Parts: sequence; structure tokens; C-alpha cells
Amino acid sequence: MNGLCIKNIQRADAASIETLARLGVATVHEAQGRLGLMHPEMRPVWRGARIAGSAVTVFAHPGDNWMIHVAVEVVKPGDVLVVACSSENRDGAFGELLATSLKAHGVVGVVLDVGCRDAAELTEMKFPVWSRAISAKGTVKETVGSVNVPVVCAGVHIVPGDVVVADDDGVVVVPRAKAAAVAKAGLAREEKEAANRKQLVAGALGIDLYGMRKPLADKGLRSIEGPVDYGTFEPPAKV
Amino acid sequence: MNGLCIKNIQRADAASIETLARLGVATVHEAQGRLGLMHPEMRPVWRGARIAGSAVTVFAHPGDNWMIHVAVEVVKPGDVLVVACSSENRDGAFGELLATSLKAHGVVGVVLDVGCRDAAELTEMKFPVWSRAISAKGTVKETVGSVNVPVVCAGVHIVPGDVVVADDDGVVVVPRAKAAAVAKAGLAREEKEAANRKQLVAGALGIDLYGMRKPLADKGLRSIEGPVDYGTFEPPAKV
Amino acid sequence: MNGLCIKNIQRADAASIETLARLGVATVHEAQGRLGLMHPEMRPVWRGARIAGSAVTVFAHPGDNWMIHVAVEVVKPGDVLVVACSSENRDGAFGELLATSLKAHGVVGVVLDVGCRDAAELTEMKFPVWSRAISAKGTVKETVGSVNVPVVCAGVHIVPGDVVVADDDGVVVVPRAKAAAVAKAGLAREEKEAANRKQLVAGALGIDLYGMRKPLADKGLRSIEGPVDYGTFEPPAKV
Amino acid sequence: MNGLCIKNIQRADAASIETLARLGVATVHEAQGRLGLMHPEMRPVWRGARIAGSAVTVFAHPGDNWMIHVAVEVVKPGDVLVVACSSENRDGAFGELLATSLKAHGVVGVVLDVGCRDAAELTEMKFPVWSRAISAKGTVKETVGSVNVPVVCAGVHIVPGDVVVADDDGVVVVPRAKAAAVAKAGLAREEKEAANRKQLVAGALGIDLYGMRKPLADKGLRSIEGPVDYGTFEPPAKV
Amino acid sequence: MNGLCIKNIQRADAASIETLARLGVATVHEAQGRLGLMHPEMRPVWRGARIAGSAVTVFAHPGDNWMIHVAVEVVKPGDVLVVACSSENRDGAFGELLATSLKAHGVVGVVLDVGCRDAAELTEMKFPVWSRAISAKGTVKETVGSVNVPVVCAGVHIVPGDVVVADDDGVVVVPRAKAAAVAKAGLAREEKEAANRKQLVAGALGIDLYGMRKPLADKGLRSIEGPVDYGTFEPPAKV
Amino acid sequence: MNGLCIKNIQRADAASIETLARLGVATVHEAQGRLGLMHPEMRPVWRGARIAGSAVTVFAHPGDNWMIHVAVEVVKPGDVLVVACSSENRDGAFGELLATSLKAHGVVGVVLDVGCRDAAELTEMKFPVWSRAISAKGTVKETVGSVNVPVVCAGVHIVPGDVVVADDDGVVVVPRAKAAAVAKAGLAREEKEAANRKQLVAGALGIDLYGMRKPLADKGLRSIEGPVDYGTFEPPAKV
Repeated sequence: MNGLCIKNIQRADAASIETLARLGVATVHEAQGRLGLMHPEMRPVWRGARIAGSAVTVFAHPGDNWMIHVAVEVVKPGDVLVVACSSENRDGAFGELLATSLKAHGVVGVVLDVGCRDAAELTEMKFPVWSRAISAKGTVKETVGSVNVPVVCAGVHIVPGDVVVADDDGVVVVPRAKAAAVAKAGLAREEKEAANRKQLVAGALGIDLYGMRKPLADKGLRSIEGPVDYGTFEPPAKV
Repeated sequence: MNGLCIKNIQRADAASIETLARLGVATVHEAQGRLGLMHPEMRPVWRGARIAGSAVTVFAHPGDNWMIHVAVEVVKPGDVLVVACSSENRDGAFGELLATSLKAHGVVGVVLDVGCRDAAELTEMKFPVWSRAISAKGTVKETVGSVNVPVVCAGVHIVPGDVVVADDDGVVVVPRAKAAAVAKAGLAREEKEAANRKQLVAGALGIDLYGMRKPLADKGLRSIEGPVDYGTFEPPAKV
Repeated sequence: MNGLCIKNIQRADAASIETLARLGVATVHEAQGRLGLMHPEMRPVWRGARIAGSAVTVFAHPGDNWMIHVAVEVVKPGDVLVVACSSENRDGAFGELLATSLKAHGVVGVVLDVGCRDAAELTEMKFPVWSRAISAKGTVKETVGSVNVPVVCAGVHIVPGDVVVADDDGVVVVPRAKAAAVAKAGLAREEKEAANRKQLVAGALGIDLYGMRKPLADKGLRSIEGPVDYGTFEPPAKV
Repeated sequence: MNGLCIKNIQRADAASIETLARLGVATVHEAQGRLGLMHPEMRPVWRGARIAGSAVTVFAHPGDNWMIHVAVEVVKPGDVLVVACSSENRDGAFGELLATSLKAHGVVGVVLDVGCRDAAELTEMKFPVWSRAISAKGTVKETVGSVNVPVVCAGVHIVPGDVVVADDDGVVVVPRAKAAAVAKAGLAREEKEAANRKQLVAGALGIDLYGMRKPLADKGLRSIEGPVDYGTFEPPAKV
Repeated sequence: MNGLCIKNIQRADAASIETLARLGVATVHEAQGRLGLMHPEMRPVWRGARIAGSAVTVFAHPGDNWMIHVAVEVVKPGDVLVVACSSENRDGAFGELLATSLKAHGVVGVVLDVGCRDAAELTEMKFPVWSRAISAKGTVKETVGSVNVPVVCAGVHIVPGDVVVADDDGVVVVPRAKAAAVAKAGLAREEKEAANRKQLVAGALGIDLYGMRKPLADKGLRSIEGPVDYGTFEPPAKV
Repeated sequence: MNGLCIKNIQRADAASIETLARLGVATVHEAQGRLGLMHPEMRPVWRGARIAGSAVTVFAHPGDNWMIHVAVEVVKPGDVLVVACSSENRDGAFGELLATSLKAHGVVGVVLDVGCRDAAELTEMKFPVWSRAISAKGTVKETVGSVNVPVVCAGVHIVPGDVVVADDDGVVVVPRAKAAAVAKAGLAREEKEAANRKQLVAGALGIDLYGMRKPLADKGLRSIEGPVDYGTFEPPAKV
């Protein structure tokens, strides 16, 4: 699907998006069954942002950012721009001028499976960007790609309108149809974790709290009191 | 050219260097035709510096920082020390003591295609360093390299006296003979970008501002109003 | 040694550990003969910590953090938890809940040859963690590994009870039996460096301070006054 | 979609698959508009195979090959097994015994976004495997994934039943619904290339054959007769 | 332990070594509980060798192969030379002349956590070498390391005299004291695999042969007959 | 220097080129003082070629092979085509049709700091290619670069007309002006190595042959007879 710009997309409901943003990447990723996480090369240009929004997707080519310019026309306030590339590339396809333009149109963040430049300016503007590299390498406007087609970005298949959540832990994608359910599951998880946290602060052990002693024994974990002299220690047989 | 120290070099004029420093890496890189950018592994040890200076070059060997010590004798105030290595290496060839020494001689920053250590101390001193890694790995002083010979550093050929510009976006090299012209072109670019920025802030679209609609159509970009159901969508034919 | 938890270990003396923490990674690494440094992929989740402690080791499997939970039961105040993995993996085996639990038990930091998540929360808590990646990828609790067996973590062999020192430069391991001697050697090195620093601040040259002129000449370094025209320059013969 | 095995899938027609196999990866990739190519880390365990088949997909977890065993029950003669993983992993999830089993069931090749072992045996059996690594690292059977759900493998989204083509150039995926059209476009391309090849053998220049002289001039390519002295050469102005 | 050459070491018995060589890396790795495997960057310079021998270890420094020359004096027929490096390095520390020398002294193979050169000549000589890179980069003889001290090579701790097994799958290390037991366990595994192979050739399914149906169901794997339309398919609930 | 094609270049003398080809990469690299070696990512598409020729250079952009087509017009029999790229890229910029065309014009090999495709066909044609990757990814013809300008390829600065030598060990560049001297030095080295080889075959030790015993002792290498018990061994003091 090259050479296509689909102007309008369906978006997830605002309440789910807001909840997902507050929950953050790690909780959302767990809440949807440990799916949808982009690979860890995706890092924030500056630390401290936590966002979520509907994905407007760009399919670009290495060293070419033309389609990002096309996408500016179709974004809506609250969207997250997601840029995939037809092959591995770290050129600086995105910088402060594009950020200024997207900000003017209400975009809340950008996720790039390529490089980003103007790191200092983006940090100062507090415009949130995740990318696989920081690089000043300029890009051309020569080859047509697509806007709002399904893409694979940083190892994750993403359909336009899916919810993108991003923070200091990286980027996770929630299919639009699951946004409400995942938000709900995330809140439940948050609640459960809050209860556990209290106990852990008080010194409880996870192996008790999570009932791990029996499963560990069943799987064969043996304990030795110790200390042992590691220079001469031979563990109980079992090659 | 191993085993050679050339004590004096020609430097670019101070005004061009000052302008290039202010413009920063992304603008300078564009202004000289998208040439001279070091690869994106080159990252600042701490964020926020923006420098430029004449390059004093070091050609070193893996795990050996002897030639950096030799170079301290030939630097002049305003210089940037550039360290290339005869093979890929991330050992910590540079740290706080060398930084202290270079600072005492007026050097404004260091660019290392090897590792750097004492990251906390360099951050506290606000001495700007770009390197391919942070590593405490110590280096020996055994093998003679060279000082002030042309080198390839992080993918860029650099002649002693060329201008090195570095900031949060990385490192770019401007040939000495082109410093004034590139500075001038950079200022023109800056001015043009300022004009564009105003329009983008006001909501103008880049595809209008940069006249992209016709070229996009000529290259075959088709638009569809949408939204579509991506589960069943078939794009208009064109395998 | 899979499937074994050794509950008690011998630890280094507190005074040596305290000294090693204060000296930091680069000095300790040099003081013990440039040994024991983990590879530079090991980076702090947040910058600015400097710690040391006795190593409690975990041998885990890719995508599985079960043994970390087991280890919480055997840590003592002042310890550093060290997590090795049976193959290269960057999943987020450690996060804020485990940090909360370890903190409640007095652990001073964690070193992971896998990934870490909850980067924002760990930064806010100021709980020091070094890892090879930041990743929200969840892990299972299925496969038994070991606790307090010797492991290789990030390229370094570490025996439980060895001293781990970590700061912005990375992570270094000091064998328990050498902790006192290395601490002493580190203090001596620190003193010597302080003396050198004074001279360097005053403009002294390292090649004089360290007596390098003769060795450099013996190894064949030749100096040329310069400047030369690099476009046409031919170095004195010596293919 | 974790924990699901879909037993039956729709497959592409045999004639298209046969044509795609004969055309090979580079031609097929071009014929479908330069889409669907897996990243170049995917390499054959041995050189010389060229296959195509319908994809039976596996979604596995790092260090765990349980789902491959599940998939053996659902493959049909002519299929290609495609193994994706929930995070980056190079463990040896596949070896000679599984190959023996798949071969007994008519599978024509395997594509693994993880590691492969028994390289010598697979080479001797001439069973075609593409993987991101060769590694003897053993895997567990502990965590449930899925069989025949859509996955992202080596950067490409693949739906069960899509056609996988693989040879010494890597792996490309053709959506099932496009198999016939892509096969036809590939044959046309092959024919055109054969005609061009004849002319190139006879010494024709591509810039003439492909009509590139005018476009090159329009884009600003300037020619100089030369030779020039590169030590002093200054290209015609244009910073 | 820098600057030390320990001339004599204890070796494993010849029968165990011979058995381990015949079993190969994958079987040996499994037989000793999935421990001791070097990381998969370690690749043979040419395919087809399968060796085992007692490890004579070298601890070298980046870009320096001096200690390999020292080690030649202490090797015995049947040994494998193992070269570790104090930091990551791919220089060509080993080539045809050293291979000729080691061959003259009966060494059966070399394992290098650095680079290797003279690939064509080593292939022609059929001298087996595993390395992390092929590189012609020359090395110096300046910095003293050690011979026959414990080292970490490619992620594995190895004590001189341990058995090294290497083939097309990589390199695995068996502690000397366990050589006989691992060889025995490997033979048992080989026998069991031979029995399984027969059944798999006959079309048996691994999930039956290995009794996986119940554990899979217990862990929640659900089967659906299919086929489904993936464009609209919604899996049975379970976020 | 973008947008420039310099049609004619000066070449090295045929006799030097022939000698350099016969000597091969490792010997040539040593003979010119361990300079000019490309990084080890540059691997032959098939093993067994050993070539040398005058460099015709191409400066291309990521995902774009247009300038290679331009270069075909300026090559002469015996040349080696060298392709550099303005940023890191592994797309398949070169394949069988271009090889056919270059072969028709007498080119002896190609060196690409990008990807190569049609690996099977190039192997069958025995056309020698070195590249940083094998990838079928197609490239566009949109952005003008240059032909026969100095470039940095795989870490080495190369001026058109320099001699490129390539074999299974990688690629090395010899400046045109030094070709004769390096060829002569290489022959001398070859002769010396032949003499050493004889002695090594006869069992001589390198540490005797190369007079290393005294330098090793001077640098502090100590020998211990051994064997020692590594579990309890403490090396003679020297932290």
C-alpha cells in the first residue's frame, strides 16, 4: 500500500485514551496480555513525558520524510504521529519545525522508527518524541509512501486509530477495539499493585505474597543454608 | 601516517567559528549540503552544550590513549580535540584529568570515536565531550599514533584545522576553506526557517508552504477520504 | 548450577565497601589492575548514583524473573542484587514493585544484564539500577534458575559476596578477598591524582608530568613544526 | 492473541506458490511494490535453497519453543513454518529433530525470528532454514503462545496462509490475496530484465537503456572531464 | 591476574574429550543442564569442523596478541587455545602463521573472543578457528596479559583445563571435573534422541511423544478448528 | 561535493595492482603500516575471491542506487567500484544486472558500504562483491550523489584511483602514490614470513624467533610452573 493517503480514520474514545495515558506503558502492556510493545531501541528524546493518543500512521522510505509533511494535513488534536520506514534507517526525519507544525494542530507526540533531530529544541519545547536515534542527518522529499495505512513500527503492527501509549519505558500499541477493555484491566491491575506495594513496603516477601513457594519446590528449586566456600564448593549432584 | 606529530595547524577565522557554534549541528549540516555529519553513535556525555572550534586531530590505537597526552602540547584556546582510532574501540581513553588539562589550555570540547570515563565529573565540570560510549575501561600508553594528521572519525574525513560543531544532535565537520561560506548559508537558512516557523505556528501546512501538492500528485500519491474498515479494505488496484 | 538457592554468603567488610563506593568505578577499576569492569552496555537508569555493596547473585533465564523474587528473601541491608541471564535478553525483568521490596530490605542497588522497566518511577524513588536496556516487556515466572551461585554478568565473573561498585561510568566487581587491598590502592591513586590535578590546572603538560618524552621518542614519534598544506603534504618516508 | 491454536487456514493456490518460488526473493519483492521484505538479519543456515509455501505461524516467547511443537500438528505438505517471538531472542529454538518431524509432514522450510541449532545436520539434510542466529542455546517448554495467529516476524506483518518466499537474499512475504497478481507481475519483470540483460551484456549503458540522462541533468548532476588533482581540487561553487 | 603465565595445567581424560567432540555442541550443552555456551557471535571461520580439547587460556588486551605467542610454549597436543580480551575488540589477533605454529605443536583448534585473519589460508589448511569476527587488522605486542588464568570468554567463565567443544553451532565449555559425567549424560541423550527420531520420521507428533497435550491444556492453550477470516476475526474473550 | 561526476581519473600502474592482488589484504594492510583497512562488517558475498583494482568511487544516498548507474559509464577494465553512502544503510543497491553490466565493461569487483542482492546469482557468476549486508530491499533513483569524488567507505577515506584490495579477510585501500612502495614492502614481508613459516613448521617458538623473551620479562611477565588448584589459587601479590 504505497502511494496512498487515507484522510480520515476512526479513533478510540477519549476516556479510554486518557486512562491509558495515566496508566503508562508497563501497566498497559501487562494489562493487554504482554502484547504490542515496540522494541527497546525506541527511546524518548527527553525523559519525563507520558502520553497516549490515536495513531496517525506514516509509511516512509529511508532518508525521506516527505510523507510526514503529508500527514500534517490529516492529524486531529490528541493524535500521535507514528512513522514507520521501509527499511532500517536512523536519519533525522523529524525536527523542531515539524514539531511546531504538529503542535499547532494539537498532536500530543511523535513515534519514529527512524531518527530525530533538534533534540535540544524539542526538549525546550517539551514536545514528546520517541525515536530509534538522534541524528541531524537531513532527509529528502522524493519518494511517495503512504499515510494512514497499517504499518509495522519498531516490531509492532499498528492500524491507524489504534491507541499509542508512550513514556520513559518506551511505546506500546493498543488496538482501538480493545482500548476500553485494556484501560479497565489496567485500572484493576493498578489497584492490585497498590495493595501489594503496601505489603512489600512493610517487608512482606513476594514469594509469600504471590504464593511461589510450592511452585518453586515443584519445579525443583533446592535451598542450601550456606555460606559455602565457592573455591571448592560442589553443588549436590545433578549434572 | 603513523608516528607523526605536526605541531602547528591553520585555523578557521574566529567569526565563522562563532557563527557555526550558534547555528548548531542540524543547521550547519544542511547549510553545507548535508555533508560532514558523524554517525549517530557519537553522543554527548551530558546534554545541553553547543560548541564549535578548530580540530586538533589524534590518531590513536584501540585501548591506548598515549597520543591524547601528546596532543595537549599542541592545542590552542578555542580548539576541539578529535580522537580517531585505528579500529572500533569503546575503552575509556579520556577522563576528568585530561579534561582538566585541556581546559587549562583553553580547549572547548572533545570528540572521541572511542569511550569516555568520569562521566559524573565531566558533567559537573561542564566540560563538553562527545563519545561513542561511556566506559571506565583503562587504556595503556604503548603504541605511537599521530597528532594533526587527517583522520576518519565516526565516518567523517577530517583535516586538522577543519571546524567541528557539536551539540545534542551530534557532531558535524566543516572544511576550513568552507567555514565562512557555510556560516553565511546557515544564517540564510536560519532566517528562512524563522519565516516558515511563524506560518507553521499559525497553522499553515508544510505541503502548501513548500509547494508540495503538485510534486506529490506527479509522483502518484492518491488520496482517499476514509475512514475505511482496515480489516477488509482493499486499496485501489496497483499491485 | 541450576535450581539452587544458597541462603547465606560471606560479605566484605563495611569499611572497604564504603571506601570503594566513594572512590567510584574508574578509580577502583584502575586500582585493581584494570580488571573486573562490566561491558559498557550496562547503564544507569538515572544519572547521579554512586554505590557499592556485597553481591547477591541471581542466575535467570531469558524472559523470566522468577529468581529475583527468590533472592529477595536472602538479601541483607547494604547488598547489591546482581542478575545474570542464561542468554542475551533485554526484557524488563525488574521494576518499581521489586525495587520497593528490595528497598524495604535495605538493598542499595541492582545490576541487571537484562532489561529494566518503570524508569520514571525508579528515577523518582532514587533507587539505583544499572541495566543493559530499558524495556517494559513483561517476564514470566516459569523456569528455575539459581541464587547465590557464581555467575558471569555483563562479561565479568562474579562470586556471591564480591563487592560491586557502580556509578555513571558503569559497574566494576572487586573480589571479596581483595576488597581491602583494592580500597587502599584506590586511596593511594586518588591522592596521586589530586597532586597531578593541581599541576595540570596550573598548565603543566602530562607528557612532562608523566615523563613521556623519552619513551615517545624511543618508540619513534617524530615531530614536525608545521603548518603543512594537507592537500599536498607527504610525510617523511616510512611506508 | 496468546494461548490460541487455529488448526486450519486458507492457503494460496499451488501454481502461484510455484511461480513465486522460482522467481525468488528479489524479483518478488520488486513485483509487489517493494513491500514485505524481512530485515536482513534473517539468513539461511546453508546457502543455495529457494523455496515458497503457505505460512503456518507461531507466536513464541524468548527461550521457549513449545509452540513449535504444537504447530507440527497443523502443518500441511508445502507449508513454511514461520516463528515470531514476543521479544528479541537468539536462542536455538529449532534443530534437527524438529526438522525431521516437519519434513515427515511435508513442510518445505522454516523461518525463525530467533536462533537455530544443529547447523551441520540441517545442512546435511538439506532442510532449508532461515534464522536471525545460529545458537545451540536450549529452550524450555513453559509458556503458551499461539499458532496461526497474525504475527510480526523480522519486521513484517504476516497473516497465516500468506506466501513466504525465501532464498539466499532473505525472506519476503506475499499476502495470500495478492499471490497470483504478484506472480504475474514477477513474470513480467523477469521478461523485461531478460531483455535488458542482453543489452547490458552487449555493453549498453543503463543510463541510456533506462533513459536516465535527462532526469539526472534535471536534478543537477554536473560532469567534469577530469582527471583532477584531488589534493587541490575545488569543485565548481555550490556550498 | 595480569602478567602471569602458568606453564602446566591439569587436563581432562582423553576418552571424555573424544566423546564430547563426537557428541557436538548442542548435545553437550543440553547434557550439562544448558550451561556453558558461548554467545552466538562466536562463529567458525570455515564450516564443518567438530572438535574438543583441554583449554589453554590467554588473557589479552584490545589490539594486542602478544600473549598468544607466549601461550604457544605451554600448549600440548590435543589442546584448544582460548583467547579472551579485556574489552570488546575485533582486531585480527590470529592468523595463518600462528595457526601453523600451533598445529606443529598439536593444538586442535582456537577460540577467539576477538578477530581472526587469513580466513582463506585457515580454510585451506583446515585449521579450525572460532572467532567473533574476521578482520585483517594487525595487532601489536606491547601489553602483558596472562596465560592459563581463569578468564571470561564470550560470556563463559573458563578455567584452564576445562574442556572446550566447538562445531558449526558455536562453542561450549565443560568444567574439567564434570567432563566424564557430561559425556555419559550426552551419550544417554543421544540414544534417547535416536529413538525419538525414528518415531518422528514415521510421522509421530512431538506433542504426543513428549506428552505435551495435558500440560498445554493446563496452561490454557485453546484450539479453534478454523479457518477464520483474519480481517474480522475476534478471538474468544480474554484481553 | 554532491552532484558531480568526474569522468576520468588517474590509476595506479598495473604491475603494482597485480602484486597487491596476489599479496592479499592482510599482507598489504601490514605492509603499509596497518592503515587503510575497512571495518569488518564488509564481507564477501561469496568466499574465495582475491582482487585488486583502481577505485572508481560512488557517493550515494540511503535507499538510492542512481549513482551506481552513472558510474558504469566511467569505469575502465580492471577497476573496482566503491560505493559509499551518506548514512548507514543496508538496502540492496546492487545486484546481478548491474554486475552483468560492470562485467561487460571489465570491472573486477565491487565494494559496497550498503547492501547487495542476488547473492545466488553473483555466486554463480563468480562476480566478486563485498558488502555490509545481503538484502533484497529495492532502491530508488531519485537523489543525485557523485561519482569519482573522495569518499569515506566503511571507515576508510578513499580517493578515486587509489588501489582497492579485497579478499576473504575484507577490504584494504592503498593510496595510489604509495601503491608501488607498498607492493614492494609486501613482497619483502612475504619473503620474511616464508622463512619464519619454515621454522614454525619445524616447531620453533615465536617467542624465540621474534626475540620476545627479554621484552616480556622487562614488562613484568612472571611464570609459574604449575599446575595450580584454581579453586584456591592466589597469584603472587600485586593487586
